Amino acid sequence: MSDLNPLFRPRSVALIGASSDPKKYGYWTAKGLIDSQFTGDLYFISRTAAADILGQKPYASISDVPGSVDLAILGISPKYILPVIQECADKGVKAVVVVATGFGETGPEGKALEQKMIAIAQKTGMRIMGPNCMGIFSSPVNLNASTIDLDDGHMGLVLQSGNFGIDINFNAKTRGLGYSGWASIGNQADLRFADFVEYLGQDEDTRVVLMYMEGLRVSSVDDGRNFLRKARLTTLQKPVAVIKIGRSKAGARAAASHTGSLAGSENIFDAALNQAGVIRVETPNELLDVGEAFSRCKMPKGNRIAILTDGGGHGVMATDMAENLGLNAAVLSEETQKKLRAILKPHCPIKNPVDLAGTPEGDMWVFDRCAEVLLADPDVDGLVIAGLYGGYCDFSEEFRQLEMDVAKSLADRATKADKPVVMHSMYHAQQPESLVHIMKHGFPVYGSVDAAMRAMGALVGFGARQGKIQEELAAQPPQLPEDRLAQVQIIFDKVRSQNRVNLVETEAREVLRAYGFNLPSHLLATNENEAATLFDELGAKKVVMKIVSPDILHKTDAGGVILNVDSEEKARDAYIQLLSNAKKYDANADIFGVMLTPMLSGGVECIIGSSYDSTFGPAVMFGLGGIFVEVLKDVSFRVAPVNGPEAKRMISEINAYPLLTGVRGQQGVNLSALENAVSMLSYMVVELSDVAEVDLNPVFATEDGVDVVDARIVLHPVNK
Amino acid sequence: MSDLNPLFRPRSVALIGASSDPKKYGYWTAKGLIDSQFTGDLYFISRTAAADILGQKPYASISDVPGSVDLAILGISPKYILPVIQECADKGVKAVVVVATGFGETGPEGKALEQKMIAIAQKTGMRIMGPNCMGIFSSPVNLNASTIDLDDGHMGLVLQSGNFGIDINFNAKTRGLGYSGWASIGNQADLRFADFVEYLGQDEDTRVVLMYMEGLRVSSVDDGRNFLRKARLTTLQKPVAVIKIGRSKAGARAAASHTGSLAGSENIFDAALNQAGVIRVETPNELLDVGEAFSRCKMPKGNRIAILTDGGGHGVMATDMAENLGLNAAVLSEETQKKLRAILKPHCPIKNPVDLAGTPEGDMWVFDRCAEVLLADPDVDGLVIAGLYGGYCDFSEEFRQLEMDVAKSLADRATKADKPVVMHSMYHAQQPESLVHIMKHGFPVYGSVDAAMRAMGALVGFGARQGKIQEELAAQPPQLPEDRLAQVQIIFDKVRSQNRVNLVETEAREVLRAYGFNLPSHLLATNENEAATLFDELGAKKVVMKIVSPDILHKTDAGGVILNVDSEEKARDAYIQLLSNAKKYDANADIFGVMLTPMLSGGVECIIGSSYDSTFGPAVMFGLGGIFVEVLKDVSFRVAPVNGPEAKRMISEINAYPLLTGVRGQQGVNLSALENAVSMLSYMVVELSDVAEVDLNPVFATEDGVDVVDARIVLHPVNK
Repeated sequence: MSDLNPLFRPRSVALIGASSDPKKYGYWTAKGLIDSQFTGDLYFISRTAAADILGQKPYASISDVPGSVDLAILGISPKYILPVIQECADKGVKAVVVVATGFGETGPEGKALEQKMIAIAQKTGMRIMGPNCMGIFSSPVNLNASTIDLDDGHMGLVLQSGNFGIDINFNAKTRGLGYSGWASIGNQADLRFADFVEYLGQDEDTRVVLMYMEGLRVSSVDDGRNFLRKARLTTLQKPVAVIKIGRSKAGARAAASHTGSLAGSENIFDAALNQAGVIRVETPNELLDVGEAFSRCKMPKGNRIAILTDGGGHGVMATDMAENLGLNAAVLSEETQKKLRAILKPHCPIKNPVDLAGTPEGDMWVFDRCAEVLLADPDVDGLVIAGLYGGYCDFSEEFRQLEMDVAKSLADRATKADKPVVMHSMYHAQQPESLVHIMKHGFPVYGSVDAAMRAMGALVGFGARQGKIQEELAAQPPQLPEDRLAQVQIIFDKVRSQNRVNLVETEAREVLRAYGFNLPSHLLATNENEAATLFDELGAKKVVMKIVSPDILHKTDAGGVILNVDSEEKARDAYIQLLSNAKKYDANADIFGVMLTPMLSGGVECIIGSSYDSTFGPAVMFGLGGIFVEVLKDVSFRVAPVNGPEAKRMISEINAYPLLTGVRGQQGVNLSALENAVSMLSYMVVELSDVAEVDLNPVFATEDGVDVVDARIVLHPVNK
Repeated sequence: MSDLNPLFRPRSVALIGASSDPKKYGYWTAKGLIDSQFTGDLYFISRTAAADILGQKPYASISDVPGSVDLAILGISPKYILPVIQECADKGVKAVVVVATGFGETGPEGKALEQKMIAIAQKTGMRIMGPNCMGIFSSPVNLNASTIDLDDGHMGLVLQSGNFGIDINFNAKTRGLGYSGWASIGNQADLRFADFVEYLGQDEDTRVVLMYMEGLRVSSVDDGRNFLRKARLTTLQKPVAVIKIGRSKAGARAAASHTGSLAGSENIFDAALNQAGVIRVETPNELLDVGEAFSRCKMPKGNRIAILTDGGGHGVMATDMAENLGLNAAVLSEETQKKLRAILKPHCPIKNPVDLAGTPEGDMWVFDRCAEVLLADPDVDGLVIAGLYGGYCDFSEEFRQLEMDVAKSLADRATKADKPVVMHSMYHAQQPESLVHIMKHGFPVYGSVDAAMRAMGALVGFGARQGKIQEELAAQPPQLPEDRLAQVQIIFDKVRSQNRVNLVETEAREVLRAYGFNLPSHLLATNENEAATLFDELGAKKVVMKIVSPDILHKTDAGGVILNVDSEEKARDAYIQLLSNAKKYDANADIFGVMLTPMLSGGVECIIGSSYDSTFGPAVMFGLGGIFVEVLKDVSFRVAPVNGPEAKRMISEINAYPLLTGVRGQQGVNLSALENAVSMLSYMVVELSDVAEVDLNPVFATEDGVDVVDARIVLHPVNK
């Protein structure tokens, strides 16, 4: 946390490149710093300016500054940057913000310049935000080094694009929302999302962390995993919401059927953010909807929502949305209904949604009286008011005053209640003073019913997100056999010594067995007579025989699998046939022999796999086999490792899940064995950094357990 | 069309219940009528008012009005309504608008009052809009009888809820949008959505028809089908967009697995609007986004879109969305790229999206110059500009003027081009004059990138909607056999004579055969010896034997099906077994005998079914059988009948479609036979009004054709 204190809580700030020319960045920023009344010491640095800048005498260099400097804002162009960075480091500056463009985003030369800056900074532990960014804002110390007119509030906003910062801020201003901290982090040459999510997560003034991302910048998967870990820990404290753009290519990618290509990085990104409990939104407006809800609302204790509406249409629309958002309609008690009926005429529905049905036209106080009743009902966890007034004020002064009085009472009521209240008003865009009062002193008012409902959905959903993470953190990882690594090492050494990355199936099975996977025994025959002998030795009624060759990965295509071999004689024939097929398929294939294993039958065909994501590292996949994965793409992903609860969710979220629990009179499969297998594989691929890809396909899930029928493991060309 | 001329083009209007009391509806409406400067004769009617109302002398009764009256607005309460309706009818009024609440929405008494009004009106052919509505607006005759401040424009808006009319209008005003016609149609006692969609569809001043629906009011399915037909014909002229609320219960319903319960009415509603080419939106805001696009844009000739952006973030977001909206990125020609490079510096990407990357800060004209180049490229069908300026005007008068000059040029350019242009600006909410100019004189400006992209998506998608309808209208219906009705009548007569609604399978097969479905022959045995004889007669190697009883619908559950019977002896045994099982299952079951048909094998298991929707009547369903329908709910619906092209779309839109075209090296099925079967069934259920439900489940689709394996037909209790 302390790392970002120089950015968000500096005691002294220097603006390098300050200017008195109103057309220049150096002037705008200087003015912003003065206007925001920064609480610490402020120094302007200008090589050229002789006169005062906005009434303050500039220094020629940061080294001339008498006191120490926590934060330097560098408003200078790339060509002058390195010596200035050096000066800052020499001065003991703790953090610098590099605003200028012309670095990594322009190509290799710019990237090299970034590396040089970092090299200088690292020597003294100085941190760099940017380059190519729009600066920083921090409300507790009145710091605005951003050139944008940002207000105080409770949102922590971290942006990769300055433009979206402007965009979102216009919207935020309309809603009277502001920031505890705001950072446009640009190229993330040094400081990255992970640093900011951690800092803002622990910052007392921040109620919600919002991020606009185009992608995570990672030097290695450690960075990706670090972000994930920090976002997850932050979610345990407070909500984190993300808009991530640049997603469209993903869909096109998920074409082929095996783990590697299905695991298009967007799928993994989705899974990762979901695992971290992050709230995903699709538009900047929705990001702010979430920001507003958490800035202004209490946290609900459950999902039972009361809807108070004036006009049936809004009520129906709210009810429509509730279902998809995981909100339940609160069942109002007899007592509550009686109280509502005492307030409302017979034509007003008093079951949830409660419809004022035009009553406010004669008496606006019904909003407040009904809200009082609904908030007092212990079976109501949150209140949505749809179709609130805001237009009567145009008719007369009396109405204006009445709207204001009711608004004050409503706002007070919401402030005192220990439940969230969100509201929709058609008059939102006009910003009548009554609504402004409610927003500033009570609860959020949205311009559309859907935004209000989504906001309540986010509030209610947050508890579930925290619960999932807590459950996962508290869960026991699977017991890994003690001597697994030694066993695996022997196999990997052999594979590496032969310059291979593909394990043959016998090897893959040994690796899985070392990790406690339950596989029927296998034997390797190297001539037809041995095949006959091993058939006997295996002692199974029927065996399956497969060619074993590092050059033949798709055995079925090569005629490399023979099923239902049920006699010594047939085993002998099968051997000869398999060898002949293999030679036909690839005359130069290196053939290790033929594997014999008992034939397995029945169960639900599943696929459990892993792939290696360039951002987050090892990830696991689960789905039903065959057409479910190939045609329907009905699969789920997680960044590895996952414990039991997450493996369980992963399995249950595929559409075909009912096939595992049993349909059409069929017995369900042993789900806990399946969860164990997924979890075990996820720990295996995290531990074995050599492994790039695993395909257990198919796996038969039965009433009794999980049988791996075919296994494929591929290593990284070089160990990661 | 002529029906609604008295509403939208009245030559004379009377306001009954006019008032000079500024707190009353009768005053607001009178004022609205005067302020809007209605082009025809305007009469105020008041039983009580002695003095002038807004300078005009009121009449005591409509019968006192000297001239004829086309339209009467009734601002009076339900208790006075019937005599006034009678007076209007006597006067020869052509249409009345009943504004008051307290009718059908309150219960049976109110409904009865509606019926009495209609009975009076029908005698003279007078039409009624309402009751429980907010009136009407028509721009060509300057009629505003709505109490809402509506502006002239090109949207036709029809609303079931007045509140949403207010809501949407606030938003419309912000965007400078207005209406050709606007109607709040309330309870739809007489005039309904179908009337309005037809009228506005033919109205020259209307460019787009927008509807806010809670549901269609239908007296019979004829009303539902009538709406569908008119919406469809309107789509051939101009776009129709709908927001429909009250949808949430649908999801919960689609639980069970057979046609009837899967066909929850929301599924059919979705299908119906889709068949009519209607654009569905989810929020009032999106409705207006679509309204704005079609009010202000040219129609595109294709889906190749150029994106011009200032700032990469907006460009990425636009590109993200394009994919889901069916928009293709235009491939810019060498020539276009050359021209763009001449305008833009090397750091600006000039492949689509074209990114100005900050250039406008120094030179705003680049927006206009690049737009000129992009609009001139013949491979560009439409242009989206993201991140347009609008904030420079706050800096200086010079910038303000520059923004305005560029805006004028951009607007002119868009007006002259034969392609649509839509725009996003972060400064939209501030409504700077430059953007206002563009909106009023050029093209739409949206406040978010996603809204701009959705708008372009709607514009591009409209051609495809029209194309689908044209294709369907031009398609040949299937050839129905000549003597089918006589054959079916014999079966239905027998079923009805036994007070049954369930056809037994042998009957269902006969009905299908009469419609030309290709079914293997079947024979009915009534004792075990006959079963043996008929086995021979059938001449199949293997037969399936099924119990035939109107009391046993789920034959498998009753042990009523035996497969693979391959000898006379086994046929005899099977007969005895089936009878015994049936008796055990239901001792009182009426058993007709046992049916023998040849065993069919192979093919892809499908389900083709029909159900009867209370709004739209007969509807058809298609899906793959077994778990695809039971677990995955992977089915498609259409209102019957459908011709080949629609049947083809219906089949291809299920997720599992690739299983029909062939995956994993398997041959695809005969798709045209499958299309024929769906189309044939759809015509059959339209023609046979007795039929409530059909389940062809399973149907085996093979390379060669379609084999119906099991058929179930249920009739309506009473013929519809």
